[in-house]
Amino acid sequence: MNILISPNSFKNSLSAVKCAAAICAGFKESDLPCECTELPIADGGDGTLEVVARYLNAQVEQVRVRDPFGRIVTAKYGWNASEKIGLIELAEASGLKLLGDDTHNPLSATTYGTGQLICEVLDRGAKKIFLTLGGSATVDGGIGVLSALGAIYKGHDENITADPLPSDLCLISGIDLRQVKERLKGAELIILCDVKNPLLGPEGAATVFGPQKGATPEGVQTLEKGLAHLADVIEHMHGVNVRSVQHGGSAGGVAAILYGLLDAKLVDGAEQILGWARFDEALKSADLVVTAEGQIDEQTDYGKGPGLVAKKAKEAGKVVIGLSGSVQAKDLRYKNFDMVLPITSHPGKLSIAFANTATNLKRTAFQLGQLLHALNRG
Amino acid sequence: MNILISPNSFKNSLSAVKCAAAICAGFKESDLPCECTELPIADGGDGTLEVVARYLNAQVEQVRVRDPFGRIVTAKYGWNASEKIGLIELAEASGLKLLGDDTHNPLSATTYGTGQLICEVLDRGAKKIFLTLGGSATVDGGIGVLSALGAIYKGHDENITADPLPSDLCLISGIDLRQVKERLKGAELIILCDVKNPLLGPEGAATVFGPQKGATPEGVQTLEKGLAHLADVIEHMHGVNVRSVQHGGSAGGVAAILYGLLDAKLVDGAEQILGWARFDEALKSADLVVTAEGQIDEQTDYGKGPGLVAKKAKEAGKVVIGLSGSVQAKDLRYKNFDMVLPITSHPGKLSIAFANTATNLKRTAFQLGQLLHALNRG
Repeated sequence: MNILISPNSFKNSLSAVKCAAAICAGFKESDLPCECTELPIADGGDGTLEVVARYLNAQVEQVRVRDPFGRIVTAKYGWNASEKIGLIELAEASGLKLLGDDTHNPLSATTYGTGQLICEVLDRGAKKIFLTLGGSATVDGGIGVLSALGAIYKGHDENITADPLPSDLCLISGIDLRQVKERLKGAELIILCDVKNPLLGPEGAATVFGPQKGATPEGVQTLEKGLAHLADVIEHMHGVNVRSVQHGGSAGGVAAILYGLLDAKLVDGAEQILGWARFDEALKSADLVVTAEGQIDEQTDYGKGPGLVAKKAKEAGKVVIGLSGSVQAKDLRYKNFDMVLPITSHPGKLSIAFANTATNLKRTAFQLGQLLHALNRG
Repeated sequence: MNILISPNSFKNSLSAVKCAAAICAGFKESDLPCECTELPIADGGDGTLEVVARYLNAQVEQVRVRDPFGRIVTAKYGWNASEKIGLIELAEASGLKLLGDDTHNPLSATTYGTGQLICEVLDRGAKKIFLTLGGSATVDGGIGVLSALGAIYKGHDENITADPLPSDLCLISGIDLRQVKERLKGAELIILCDVKNPLLGPEGAATVFGPQKGATPEGVQTLEKGLAHLADVIEHMHGVNVRSVQHGGSAGGVAAILYGLLDAKLVDGAEQILGWARFDEALKSADLVVTAEGQIDEQTDYGKGPGLVAKKAKEAGKVVIGLSGSVQAKDLRYKNFDMVLPITSHPGKLSIAFANTATNLKRTAFQLGQLLHALNRG
């Protein structure tokens, strides 16, 4: 039996690479004769850099940059020296994971550090830069990234506004991008987006994601107005309408603005990563597909990561199993999963379950292997 | 697909009958075309009376009797009026479940109330009495049962010792059973034992089970000496050696003493109940056997209830799945189970898991049904 193992990471608990290894170990230790192919996946969330670096043969390096509030942090990035490819995970410098629960404030949080990471790989001679979005703490429309790359903002009466905050977006009347374009000359910027939402409106970056980044209802309005104003400025400068471009709302508008101002290419992150993993090719010879994530629910069917794995596998007529740290007690029917199993071994503390993720994945895979073996036997 | 569903009860949470119904509902609601046969089981633990009453077409009635310390409690028993069969679950009158954690004391706890239950069904004209053992709070060698039935104890100097306590077993030099035998005339007493342990020795009733009933090391010694003395008295009276008879240590020696003094028949409880359920017959046409219990571990393979179901099913070459409220995180290989799955939906409080047992069994069975359906489809 050929088993394709494509888990996401378990947030705060286990990387996708280690999840795949644990599931593989369980099947291998069972009596089921099987070949396992480990293709860990990511969709912009926790651990995306590790997975992408694996597929693009990049070294993971680190550098000190600014967090969303300007404090110095150590951030990782990926570097493939032979092909001069830089991998940037936005959350490393501008993610919610860097902040305590009490310090969320998207009115003053910027993506400046992500811009510094881009500068770092440009300094190393990058010809291609992949920027993965997901888990951002910011709704700054990418003005932080542009500042770090050398953008100069002009105010309404032609005063220069240095490093504006998201709360001040409406004060910007123009952006001098000459230094930015000089720096990026000869380098392609491709953005792996984690959501399809547009920049503006009821499905936009401020309205949908602002609250979970700490914005009050008034804050959301301020950010929405600011991003709309920025879209006007961009249309005025370049004649490009970034308001409703698909994925534009990813990472608080970074996607839309870098698309509009720097011709960055926007792609679906999960699709791109499955492409690098040559998932479709591996799928052809698989009899069974196993994916996993900290939480799988009915919404996962329509989502990224494991949802996309399940969708592709189902479309190819494969048997699809999802392993989850947690399911709703009543969840029965899924669209693309044939079976979703929680891996929890017993009621108890979340911290203990977190510590046992690898053990529980292996045990569950082993039991599945034994069942499949018994069914083949009969 | 023919699925035989034979769960035990989940202690403190869900009866075996309801467990079977929940598992059946899950398979039925899945896309798997299947026939389910529900044969809930029991092995002397929680809920045995309900299961046995189901198979023997007995009504469950209740009566007020004495608990292990002489306090009045309401206890259930089963009655089949047409065949005049009485069903007594010892734990109803003499079980640990009646006591708070702080009141365990096998030196003064007796099975008097169980004797009263036997009197009750004798008063109704019982021709056959099945007494199920398991979960007892007592190590009284059955003297409480005998007292309630009219036994008169003689002391060393021929003084009558009325209703002695377990701590006083060594004071007994003889037992006048005339009233007891008169009461039991024409009635057969069959004891369904929950363990194979003998009355005495390192595997005996006092040494193995005394501590979990609250005996101190000194208490265990006192009880062991008392039971050994009782065995001497019985051998002297009837020429029967009850010291090492299999099952004799069940329920603190009730089995050995009623066997020695009243010719009670000792049988393996789980085997007897599977017999009533006509389990072996149902097994023949089953493709898959599902059993369940609050906890399944490697020891279950060698145990009663679900362990016996799995053993029989494995011997018959069937696929065997065990569903458990809890497994050890690392438990991988079982002797007779092909697969053991925990049903817990997520880390959390035991009380919540208890409340969700039926939901979790149904969900897990549904997922298994979907997997089996998908495998058949492929």
